[in-house]
Amino acid sequence: MSMSECRLPAMAREDPEAKGAITAPAGFRAAAVAAGIKPEGADLALLVADRTCAAAAVFTTNRAQAAPVVVSREHLASGRARAVVVNAGCANAATGEEGVADAREMAVVTAQAVGCLPPEVVVASTGVIGTRLPMKELRSGIARAADRLSREAGAEAARAILTTDTRPKEAQVRFSLGGETLTVGAMAKGAGMIAPRMATLLAFFTTDAAIEPGLLRRALRDAVGASLNRVTVDGDTSTNDMAVVLASGARARPVQTEGADYDGFREALSEAARRIAGLIVRDGEGATRMAEVRVEGAREEAEADRVARTVADSPLVKTALHGGDPNWGRILAAVGRSGVAVDIDRVDLFLGDVWVAESGQARGYDETAARRAMLEDPVRILVRLNQGRAAGWIWTCDFSHGYVDINAHYRS
Amino acid sequence: MSMSECRLPAMAREDPEAKGAITAPAGFRAAAVAAGIKPEGADLALLVADRTCAAAAVFTTNRAQAAPVVVSREHLASGRARAVVVNAGCANAATGEEGVADAREMAVVTAQAVGCLPPEVVVASTGVIGTRLPMKELRSGIARAADRLSREAGAEAARAILTTDTRPKEAQVRFSLGGETLTVGAMAKGAGMIAPRMATLLAFFTTDAAIEPGLLRRALRDAVGASLNRVTVDGDTSTNDMAVVLASGARARPVQTEGADYDGFREALSEAARRIAGLIVRDGEGATRMAEVRVEGAREEAEADRVARTVADSPLVKTALHGGDPNWGRILAAVGRSGVAVDIDRVDLFLGDVWVAESGQARGYDETAARRAMLEDPVRILVRLNQGRAAGWIWTCDFSHGYVDINAHYRS
Repeated sequence: MSMSECRLPAMAREDPEAKGAITAPAGFRAAAVAAGIKPEGADLALLVADRTCAAAAVFTTNRAQAAPVVVSREHLASGRARAVVVNAGCANAATGEEGVADAREMAVVTAQAVGCLPPEVVVASTGVIGTRLPMKELRSGIARAADRLSREAGAEAARAILTTDTRPKEAQVRFSLGGETLTVGAMAKGAGMIAPRMATLLAFFTTDAAIEPGLLRRALRDAVGASLNRVTVDGDTSTNDMAVVLASGARARPVQTEGADYDGFREALSEAARRIAGLIVRDGEGATRMAEVRVEGAREEAEADRVARTVADSPLVKTALHGGDPNWGRILAAVGRSGVAVDIDRVDLFLGDVWVAESGQARGYDETAARRAMLEDPVRILVRLNQGRAAGWIWTCDFSHGYVDINAHYRS
Repeated sequence: MSMSECRLPAMAREDPEAKGAITAPAGFRAAAVAAGIKPEGADLALLVADRTCAAAAVFTTNRAQAAPVVVSREHLASGRARAVVVNAGCANAATGEEGVADAREMAVVTAQAVGCLPPEVVVASTGVIGTRLPMKELRSGIARAADRLSREAGAEAARAILTTDTRPKEAQVRFSLGGETLTVGAMAKGAGMIAPRMATLLAFFTTDAAIEPGLLRRALRDAVGASLNRVTVDGDTSTNDMAVVLASGARARPVQTEGADYDGFREALSEAARRIAGLIVRDGEGATRMAEVRVEGAREEAEADRVARTVADSPLVKTALHGGDPNWGRILAAVGRSGVAVDIDRVDLFLGDVWVAESGQARGYDETAARRAMLEDPVRILVRLNQGRAAGWIWTCDFSHGYVDINAHYRS
């Protein structure tokens, strides 16, 4: 993106009006049950469209791909889907051919329960890696969920897919098309193993728009590139991530070509994805403070992104963020080790509105103002490389005792 | 390295006999004083050779290079040095031309105090980035240190260069050359901002061997490549790092060419560097548990290293290590996101002697044995890629509350 395009979106907060968003667009029902995969609580969500939808997805780029990723990629090649089944508590990753067979069975059982074909089912799993799915519990859970599908269960579904998340993540965006008001709904999970390399979490979007799978795929890629791919909690990319969108076509004229209709839909989908991205970084494991890292003046966008990600993933920057310490020296050190051929003598750093370093060196600045900048939400870190016109940004959160606690004993 | 060469050295522990090692080789004296750069305690170390030494160094590859790195690189271009002056408490980094002038003055003052030429002085600084050196305190401190030089002050010098380190890091290795017993002495600091990209800390080596600067440089590069470049605490490469070796030539026939003499010297220097590397990872900020990550069966060494470093720097692996949790799924996920074209279906994982994953998937193993493997010191993580014959390794430590505490308020 050019510098002028580098206006960061606001980092979304929880929106009470988004509750149950995933079933807000016409044509979708959902259900959640406690299938017994996790020791307690709801752990299985089902999302079913009234008729077959146009569908698109992006998947993790981790070379270790979980069984549900393998199966859902296969199923979504057709660009059509009818149902999404998601379990928490077990990732069905590193489970080999048996795991793939389990994921296929999950699709078959769901298809039978809701009355569609197995390839029309998207399967997703999240939880511990290396454990087989408890198929008996899963089969019975899917059957029970299918009996309870309703337009009111969107919020329950959003809760059932969580793992270490402390809050459900939902977003709802309305837009106009051909005189009608349409909706994009979204639900997601993700708090750890979050890093910006394609879809880095589970995120599900629904819409009542009618759109061809090819265009839908393009809109999803655009939306994810400027949202979900711009959050990092720990730099660890998961084996199970996917972002899926289903368009029911229930309520409007088709969005079939580029132009104002497509632009309106893409912007609505992007806005929903940005809100989800904000909610994810806000609920980062142990997170107590958020930051946006903006890099301007790079020679090319990829370099701007690389610098931004190096700063955002630096344990030293993240712990300084935790302490509210305007320790810009660590930011400069991260810029210098990013692997990008930065001319460090031209680098300017800002914390909020405080210009703390100029031309790669300390600058007389008001320490009190810099400390105040560390209390903003999010903290705004700006790196100006002054070597070109490209820019990039990323959202991150701090490293806290909470992150250590959550992850030292997650399996136990 | 080939697989057969991938025998990891033991991770050194503190060696009481190494106390004062930096002045153990003939021809060196040292001193330490409290110059008032840090709020309290010794913060200035001086190391002086009786006569001009052959000298070599490697420096940080961070593009943000501190003033002492700039000046010492210039001075060491001659391959000769007489004195090393080191301060803690202020990194003299991101201080611009004034900082470089300060570093030059530090060399001039030292040269005057010990009776050599300024280009024969190596200057090093460690501490907070972005703050100017307090030159008045430094000048008086150097003068006082020069008055107190002795062969007994090696241990005091090793203490004076520390920052967040909890223990001094010293090593002493004896070797035979031409019928004489010679010595390599070493002292180092480093606990945070430690990542394996060239010299990632301050490390000083002395020897009484006689060796030409060119050969000395080669021996140092070899030694550092297989030791200091194989430790990581947080993946953050510092702006100030350097490893310097001074050879006084005080006591033996010259090591002038390749052959048994050179090999013996290089091995002694390497052993000293390995011990220092072990001590650094053991004193990693907040570290409570150590690990070696070995990667075998890669197509090339660079790929093995990249996989090993991705695993070693993964916050999820490091927090599992903290909890003693044999969470091998996170190791597999880190292998998969390393950027190397790994065929994940061929990957085997071992924790200690327990084979936990085979061909990229869970394997029946004894959970109790796996938990026991997490109590070893260091924990041995082995990744077999089964795609070639190259191997690599790295040492790391866990992520704990201590790391967060130390770094949330380091500047304050």
